[in-house]
Amino acid sequence: MSEFLKVVTVEEALHLMALALPTRDRERIALSNGLGRELAEAVHSPEPIPSFTRSTVDGYAVRAEDTFGCSESLPAFLSYRGEIPMGKTPELIIDPGQCCWIPTGGMMPTGTDAAVMVEYTERLGDDTVLIYKAVGPGDNLMQIGEDAAQGSILLAENHCLRSQDLGLLASAGVEEVNVKHPYRVGIISTGNEIVALGTDPQPGQVRDVNSISLAAAVQAANAIAKTYPIVPDDRDMLSEAVSAACEENDWVLMSGGSSIGVKDMTLEVLMSFPQAQLLFHGVAAKPGKPTMAVKIGSKLVVGLPGHPVSALTMFGVICKPFLDAKLPQRLTATAGANIASQAGRDDYVAVYLEEREGDWIAQPLLGKSGLMTILAQADGYIHIDHQQQGIYCGETVLVTRFD
Amino acid sequence: MSEFLKVVTVEEALHLMALALPTRDRERIALSNGLGRELAEAVHSPEPIPSFTRSTVDGYAVRAEDTFGCSESLPAFLSYRGEIPMGKTPELIIDPGQCCWIPTGGMMPTGTDAAVMVEYTERLGDDTVLIYKAVGPGDNLMQIGEDAAQGSILLAENHCLRSQDLGLLASAGVEEVNVKHPYRVGIISTGNEIVALGTDPQPGQVRDVNSISLAAAVQAANAIAKTYPIVPDDRDMLSEAVSAACEENDWVLMSGGSSIGVKDMTLEVLMSFPQAQLLFHGVAAKPGKPTMAVKIGSKLVVGLPGHPVSALTMFGVICKPFLDAKLPQRLTATAGANIASQAGRDDYVAVYLEEREGDWIAQPLLGKSGLMTILAQADGYIHIDHQQQGIYCGETVLVTRFD
Repeated sequence: MSEFLKVVTVEEALHLMALALPTRDRERIALSNGLGRELAEAVHSPEPIPSFTRSTVDGYAVRAEDTFGCSESLPAFLSYRGEIPMGKTPELIIDPGQCCWIPTGGMMPTGTDAAVMVEYTERLGDDTVLIYKAVGPGDNLMQIGEDAAQGSILLAENHCLRSQDLGLLASAGVEEVNVKHPYRVGIISTGNEIVALGTDPQPGQVRDVNSISLAAAVQAANAIAKTYPIVPDDRDMLSEAVSAACEENDWVLMSGGSSIGVKDMTLEVLMSFPQAQLLFHGVAAKPGKPTMAVKIGSKLVVGLPGHPVSALTMFGVICKPFLDAKLPQRLTATAGANIASQAGRDDYVAVYLEEREGDWIAQPLLGKSGLMTILAQADGYIHIDHQQQGIYCGETVLVTRFD
Repeated sequence: MSEFLKVVTVEEALHLMALALPTRDRERIALSNGLGRELAEAVHSPEPIPSFTRSTVDGYAVRAEDTFGCSESLPAFLSYRGEIPMGKTPELIIDPGQCCWIPTGGMMPTGTDAAVMVEYTERLGDDTVLIYKAVGPGDNLMQIGEDAAQGSILLAENHCLRSQDLGLLASAGVEEVNVKHPYRVGIISTGNEIVALGTDPQPGQVRDVNSISLAAAVQAANAIAKTYPIVPDDRDMLSEAVSAACEENDWVLMSGGSSIGVKDMTLEVLMSFPQAQLLFHGVAAKPGKPTMAVKIGSKLVVGLPGHPVSALTMFGVICKPFLDAKLPQRLTATAGANIASQAGRDDYVAVYLEEREGDWIAQPLLGKSGLMTILAQADGYIHIDHQQQGIYCGETVLVTRFD
């Protein structure tokens, strides 16, 4: 092995990579292009959510004091003033002793301060509504800004935008966001025996596998892959190829050359660049011992094993965590609270995840049903089967993440 | 509720959906566009893999019988005939008592039938090589077609192409594949109170959230989303919108109208189409009770709840499994065998997953290091920390899936 030998553990390799990450440009994009992108800055709510006081139930808008003391055996009698239309400012003004029909999401009319669910009411002819349950001021309403105050942080810097985050931003009227440019990743396969797909290999030659599988893995990690022509084991050609790929990309992945001597050639070529800085040469991992990383100026060059499974695995271990801000899709966690469930139906409880001593704790989100910020707080949901009565705090649960 | 009422469990809903799935076109695409696509037919290997007999080690190509009986104390003396170059047909012919240097992946020269690892050899001057370990015929070789025979099935119909699958196909010289066309999914938000993003909502109005979040969720599920203008709660306009969306898509997702009466209107409009067939109206699940599905001709229309978190969750439960053939990224499984690991290094063991009584069993893939088919067999890998000595059969492990 060469004079550069610097073998590290995977943990050390990840630490060294984290310190050497290329800087990223930012760009402004429309919300509809935001899936999987990372925020370059926190997004503040340009307006309060909701922007008007809304009912969270189908029922009657009332003055709460008109219902005080009423019960099933002693209903309150209110005079019916009509219906609040969806999507319009109500023209009705409700005086003491009056009420009007309001649908879920409807805007509360002047004079009212609570809503009564339809289940606790009865229409009596055209003019009268009986109220069987008292409500307090604010009951069954979502007040202006209760979900998110104007100017509050909706999503933090570095947050990776999922479908529900885009929904939250849309609800606040955010139409464009500043995001980090995806990493540009150049991919170079090396080796005298490697020929490009589309070329008939002669005896002794094999087709290039790593260019296509690494490009797909890079793409799946929300980064931009660019593949370069195959380079034979030749110092000058290798040097030219690395130079061109560093020019056009943030990262360069090289793979190939598992035979003795060739890996050393790659490293020597990389270290011959004026601003080259060796991060590591050799990782104490299987597969992937010959993995190396060199920083050249602001660019990061990673030498992966030539064998395709090893190359993909080490890409997943060493590179992917830095390219892709997404967490895995489904994971096991520990329930952070008792969660009740009704037998006979399947329940899907939105949860957020906390990391505690290396474990994921799934905490149920039990906000009001109209809250929009739950969109961003929810990391996913847990499924309680229709045969289960609920989940006890401390039980292991499977969390399905939102995209 | 209407005369159509047909409440089902989630399990029944999934079963009814599975029977009503729209048919899918197929298309032929280049391998480089294959990530996440589903194969419309099995792919057979057009040639044997490998296409020539290769060494799997760096060392010496020999006639095995020349090494019989040799040992560390009694080495065999072979005359050195030179080096096999990578990527070329060897011109050397090896006679009894001779050997030549061969790199990993090099093509075995005529006359040889085994390779000896360099660690068990010693060069003595220019002409002689000492062999300290006997090898049998075929040792340290990958024979023609040993990885995959010509005509054998590389990937089955319906398989969802991951990065490693694309690598496998590239290695076999497959340049294009027949895949299913992604589902086209139309998205319609309904409601008098809903206004499009980019419009200033008046008091009582709210911005459309579901169009953007469902479109992103559809996109994340490898399907093609098309959003349509918002439709107010009007029978004729709803009918026109559904008709247009059914024309241009395989699926139509409708969301909105959580207030009493509006859901019934949606269902009545859907059932008024000549070929309408009700799958279910109401699902015994929380959230998502008002979820409904109607088949109209060959198209599938799903009515989702209006509330964004409920809409996304029910989309994930009811629709996503049919749109997206991908399995989740990371999952817990039970080790199907003892897996040894050397302390002091991190091991990443490629595994395939078997489902057994509802559990995932992770079986280690212990093939020869040069096998290409492992690319497709491996569902992912398990990580054995450098402080662990290995994993016992039956232990719980975390499997990180390849993309």
